[in-house]
Amino acid sequence: MKSILTAITALLFVSTTFAADPLPSWNDTPTKKAIVRFVEKVVKEGSSDYVPVSERIATFDNDGTLWVEQPMYFQFFFAVDRVKALAPQHPEWKTKEPFASLLKGDMNGALAGGEAALLDMLAATHAGMTSDDFDTIVTQWIAKAKHPKTGKPFTSMVYQPMLELLAYLRANGFKTFIVSGGGIDFMRPWTERVYGIPPEQVVGSSGGLKYEIRDGRPTTVKLSTLVHNDDKDGKPIGIQRHIGRRPIAAFGNSDGDLQMLQWTCSAPGPRFCLFVHHTDAAREYAYDRQSSVGKLDKGLDEAKAKSWTVVDMKSDWNTIYPK
Amino acid sequence: MKSILTAITALLFVSTTFAADPLPSWNDTPTKKAIVRFVEKVVKEGSSDYVPVSERIATFDNDGTLWVEQPMYFQFFFAVDRVKALAPQHPEWKTKEPFASLLKGDMNGALAGGEAALLDMLAATHAGMTSDDFDTIVTQWIAKAKHPKTGKPFTSMVYQPMLELLAYLRANGFKTFIVSGGGIDFMRPWTERVYGIPPEQVVGSSGGLKYEIRDGRPTTVKLSTLVHNDDKDGKPIGIQRHIGRRPIAAFGNSDGDLQMLQWTCSAPGPRFCLFVHHTDAAREYAYDRQSSVGKLDKGLDEAKAKSWTVVDMKSDWNTIYPK
Repeated sequence: MKSILTAITALLFVSTTFAADPLPSWNDTPTKKAIVRFVEKVVKEGSSDYVPVSERIATFDNDGTLWVEQPMYFQFFFAVDRVKALAPQHPEWKTKEPFASLLKGDMNGALAGGEAALLDMLAATHAGMTSDDFDTIVTQWIAKAKHPKTGKPFTSMVYQPMLELLAYLRANGFKTFIVSGGGIDFMRPWTERVYGIPPEQVVGSSGGLKYEIRDGRPTTVKLSTLVHNDDKDGKPIGIQRHIGRRPIAAFGNSDGDLQMLQWTCSAPGPRFCLFVHHTDAAREYAYDRQSSVGKLDKGLDEAKAKSWTVVDMKSDWNTIYPK
Repeated sequence: MKSILTAITALLFVSTTFAADPLPSWNDTPTKKAIVRFVEKVVKEGSSDYVPVSERIATFDNDGTLWVEQPMYFQFFFAVDRVKALAPQHPEWKTKEPFASLLKGDMNGALAGGEAALLDMLAATHAGMTSDDFDTIVTQWIAKAKHPKTGKPFTSMVYQPMLELLAYLRANGFKTFIVSGGGIDFMRPWTERVYGIPPEQVVGSSGGLKYEIRDGRPTTVKLSTLVHNDDKDGKPIGIQRHIGRRPIAAFGNSDGDLQMLQWTCSAPGPRFCLFVHHTDAAREYAYDRQSSVGKLDKGLDEAKAKSWTVVDMKSDWNTIYPK
């Protein structure tokens, strides 16, 4: 077997040595250089920064890091569409907030109830069915739904440079995970197809589940209780519970990702932490310290203090979306 | 790249065609034949039973399936040793059950308090420290602790036929997971070394976690609350939450695994469910319907009714432990 492996290694070496730039959508700036420098040093056998393959764990936030999160988290649009679809079975929603405002198209009114109203809406639209049925609902929705501004499918509004980064890390032995505040069951039906990240490598907010035999078939049924809120402090907790070891690289875009980056980059050994800074109002959106969605304030300060990498979307990326 | 891949495929084909028996510790019985038949059919491209690599998920119980669970779950011995180690800091334990009985060496007295007493003991010995510190404690304990009957390290009391089965499945593109009632943090420090299963593929019972900056360093701290009991109904729930898709093969040994096997084998497509039946009092232990540890009663009946595979340890395995 030894000689076969040697032959394979030699063949792969030849092919990677002459490979094209793995990050063509990244301009040749210090940001790109920092990424490549980090990857090259951890894969270099014999170097003091070498990291074994099994420990090459990289975690990515989703909303605003891998795909767009403006003018509102995409899962919110899903919930609104579900409220509309379910409304005929819920006549009481005509007079009950936040449903009444939503059904009248009054988003501000719906959001006036704050987090409690949002949780009511999530419970009403994300629970009560089996996990398999929810998977089907999400799959059907995401195949048809369109972004309100661009009119494109939501899964087309992923960042091409980040797709290249995911592939580049995997080609170098990294295992890539999503660690998102979004619902775990909302992401899993499409992350493998869109990002190459299988369901078992998706960490997200999750609700209670109940095992139940329905019509003679074992199922898991989604409950309306929130079991894990995978945001802020919840991100290192979700990582510890789900992955069980500290990442060596973490990628986010908001203060909701700050604890994940702290957790990742405070441990000994080579570490890489990166924030995507939305600076491109022309090609995408520009927002940071004052934004209600994807606020990046403390994170910007801490990134500067700790010399983390910050992507300036406008100057670091020559392409935003896949062609 | 195409020609390189073709060359690699050809080389690998040559090497696997002439490979030795991947399951040498399994006698040539119908059990072994059923395993091989299942694997060969799901990997055969173009066949109606073909399963893509990404869906080749196999889940394994740990206690009694991958390693011994008699005369008591090994994690219990760990907890007892922790009680002894921590006793000097807890003078109140001298008069408080189950600690008082434990410290006097009276196991029956300690267990008289039932599940509540056990949970008290787990909370006292598994919580309050950081995840990193607990990892170190487990690693140090398992390197030295010995089984009370055989005097061997616990990690030597794993089943050689199951190690071969794990490797055989992985060589055929399966991703292997542990789904155990045992504590997730108790297993993760050693499953990669012993079973080749990395921490992120271990599902188990888990307690609450808190994110905390201790001495300026971000940590997760283990709390005494039980967040997920990964047994019986908890196994399909743990699988759904952690893996996010249904396994196509599941391996257990007790009624605590029954729901995992139901969940796995009730879905359409090729499926494989197996119970290890402990029938070998001479080389290991013999127990099933009446056992307080690893009771296999309903599972035996359901395996028969549903034609699941049952390992008769005495006749199916020619070797029990690694040499």
